[in-house]
Amino acid sequence: MTTTLPASRGDALPAAAQRLRQEANQVAFDRLAKAEPVLVDVAPALSVVPSMDETTILTSGAPLPWERYTGGQRRAILYAAVYEGLAADAEAAEQAIDAGRIRVQSTQEHDCIGSVAGIYTASMPVLVVRNETAGNVAFCNLYEGESRRRLNYGSYGEDVRRELQWLENTMGPLLAEALRRHGPLPLKPIMARALRLGDELHSRNTAATMLLARELSTTFMDLDKGPFAAATREVVAFLARNEYAFLRLSMAAAKATADAAHGVEHSSLLTGMAINCQDFAVRVSGLGNEWFRGQHPELEGQLFDGFAKDDVEWIGGESCVTETVGLGGFAQACAPTLQLYQGGSAEAMRRNNEAMFDITFGEHPDFRLPPLDFRGAPLGIDVFAVLDKGIVPVIDGGLAGKDGGQIGAGVLRPSFDCFESGSAGLPRPLCARRRILIHQHIAGSTT
Amino acid sequence: MTTTLPASRGDALPAAAQRLRQEANQVAFDRLAKAEPVLVDVAPALSVVPSMDETTILTSGAPLPWERYTGGQRRAILYAAVYEGLAADAEAAEQAIDAGRIRVQSTQEHDCIGSVAGIYTASMPVLVVRNETAGNVAFCNLYEGESRRRLNYGSYGEDVRRELQWLENTMGPLLAEALRRHGPLPLKPIMARALRLGDELHSRNTAATMLLARELSTTFMDLDKGPFAAATREVVAFLARNEYAFLRLSMAAAKATADAAHGVEHSSLLTGMAINCQDFAVRVSGLGNEWFRGQHPELEGQLFDGFAKDDVEWIGGESCVTETVGLGGFAQACAPTLQLYQGGSAEAMRRNNEAMFDITFGEHPDFRLPPLDFRGAPLGIDVFAVLDKGIVPVIDGGLAGKDGGQIGAGVLRPSFDCFESGSAGLPRPLCARRRILIHQHIAGSTT
Repeated sequence: MTTTLPASRGDALPAAAQRLRQEANQVAFDRLAKAEPVLVDVAPALSVVPSMDETTILTSGAPLPWERYTGGQRRAILYAAVYEGLAADAEAAEQAIDAGRIRVQSTQEHDCIGSVAGIYTASMPVLVVRNETAGNVAFCNLYEGESRRRLNYGSYGEDVRRELQWLENTMGPLLAEALRRHGPLPLKPIMARALRLGDELHSRNTAATMLLARELSTTFMDLDKGPFAAATREVVAFLARNEYAFLRLSMAAAKATADAAHGVEHSSLLTGMAINCQDFAVRVSGLGNEWFRGQHPELEGQLFDGFAKDDVEWIGGESCVTETVGLGGFAQACAPTLQLYQGGSAEAMRRNNEAMFDITFGEHPDFRLPPLDFRGAPLGIDVFAVLDKGIVPVIDGGLAGKDGGQIGAGVLRPSFDCFESGSAGLPRPLCARRRILIHQHIAGSTT
Repeated sequence: MTTTLPASRGDALPAAAQRLRQEANQVAFDRLAKAEPVLVDVAPALSVVPSMDETTILTSGAPLPWERYTGGQRRAILYAAVYEGLAADAEAAEQAIDAGRIRVQSTQEHDCIGSVAGIYTASMPVLVVRNETAGNVAFCNLYEGESRRRLNYGSYGEDVRRELQWLENTMGPLLAEALRRHGPLPLKPIMARALRLGDELHSRNTAATMLLARELSTTFMDLDKGPFAAATREVVAFLARNEYAFLRLSMAAAKATADAAHGVEHSSLLTGMAINCQDFAVRVSGLGNEWFRGQHPELEGQLFDGFAKDDVEWIGGESCVTETVGLGGFAQACAPTLQLYQGGSAEAMRRNNEAMFDITFGEHPDFRLPPLDFRGAPLGIDVFAVLDKGIVPVIDGGLAGKDGGQIGAGVLRPSFDCFESGSAGLPRPLCARRRILIHQHIAGSTT
């Protein structure tokens, strides 16, 4: 279940330091592997998210000062203020934020996780996922639906407002009521099952969404009789139509899992990867709350018809938390349908997936991958293994466009720089810097 | 989309005969490829199955005289008479059949298709599937549920009777009502989709069952309010619990598809494979209603705990009609979870699947296989290709036990003998007999 550190590094690193790191990584790995995320509630962010208040807006990625939010991510924040009624229009929102009347913070500072720009306001309903093993809680807001125009892709208008209102007034309260009747809903069994049904739980969530709807089916039938009848019908239809809906649960579950593995002294395992408009950043278990920042990832993807590479814009994204817990690109072999827009073959997807075993501490005891003969998913990205092997995590993801909306999807490959800075705070042999450069060279020639 | 006949056979066969066969096979192939099976009703067999009457019992496989039905299949027929109220007990049923007061016939003589012993009586509800392209109709009765003890596995008792009564009084009428409200339900889109969700639609039907339930979800919510409320709740729970339920629809759809391709003069494509307690048999499109019989298949499977190879008994089975239309073993790569009880690896399953392209006329335009880079499923088994290539169809299947019930599952490989006799009625070069013997030798050494 565990991988020992490569001999080359072990030889150079003092034995005591090596042992400390190995033991710490085992602790962090066990917390990742043994997490039991359970959906316990759906409630307005204000009522459940720590340190949330009426004038706070949360957005994806490592924290940035306000002036550094640009493009679609900045637009999404301004539109969020308009949606929440904190400002009459984008210009007024800009002034209110400049004046400190509206606070912009990172989702990460509030145990939240954001899809694309990841916008949260006080009144938005959030999924409340408790990790029963460690007791910590994480949050994710709700999927807006299949429209290309969504607030978290930097779009806003009457259509977007209407969808957000529907989530707030219909979807959120109905799911909350369903959970009250059904009781807490364990997510791990659904996720493990979905990996056997063609999902990898980042870019593909079709089976998981069906399993969720199936789990709640008799509860929905109960609700269909009382005052919730109309809402229930709409929610059932929404879940049948929106096969991406489970992603937000997959993300909340992953966040609740990764957070539990954070803060293990001496551990070199990643507990977060996050994108904002300026950078890609990683968090390392043993290095506190610092985010180690680097360039945006390389793209290997397919753009939807009518879009060119110049149309792609980085506007944030934290769904790569799924890769941190052995899903998404780390379970890519399970979802060969994704080759259609990831531009590869089923075999290439298996190879991508298998390469991840080289940079992870062990294999997931519960998330098993049928196309890889039920091997456990590669789990626990070791920042030193990334540098040593010259292999970066492979991330499944969607692409946002400059004018708002989703314009494509594909595989993201981060650069090495954030892993290098993320390793600097931990003991490493004197020769590490040279080896890092060699690996960057190797990686550059193979990607 | 089509495969030409191998040169070795073409050279030996007169050009005119070769052309006739190629054209005939193209016609049969197109009928297989373009079938549009639609679930239109659920009704008692007596009311819809051609030539059915109150004292007829249908059972799986090529027709046999009554005295040749033995073991579990014979037991299942006798129990069917008891269930239907045609006899007080198995002994009385035996006498009634001997005396001609109860008629035993093959499902195949009534456009029906049978799972394992495939028992039909007049009052049992059947799925009515119409092939919209050709206009023909096929039938399959309902899945009894997860119990190891089922009538179609040769088991009977109060428990089995209760399940059958539930199908007759609850499941059948409720599904019929749901269809009346929903309208005819096209099966091909569900089946094509399920292949992308881990099913191969013979031994694995989890996704298809969920897609079916999803398609009917709002209809079930409507029904949950009226006089059908209690039945609806039970049926929704049954579908959530019984992930094999869709198999009967997959079989009926396959039967409606294969029947449309039957009767094309000069065609050497298979339009049926069927098992009874005595033999494995195939039907060839250009050779009328004769069944060409051979030995029972070789088994490569896993027995459930507590059972040995001696416990396996052949009691019939026609679910291999799914393989006839490019599903099951012919889409095996789509369902890598089956390796758990088929005893192979994901790679072996892909290889099994790919070998089927060597014995089929073309590729399915709609049933596409993501693990094989969306290649169309191998479709249209050519009896001459089987003999020429020395490759028999690979069939996913369940195993029955001598004492009744399912005791295992795995891959079945028919012997060459039925294909040899099935080719005898069509023009073939003089050297064919020698080649057949060579291929039997090759096949014997590789299976």
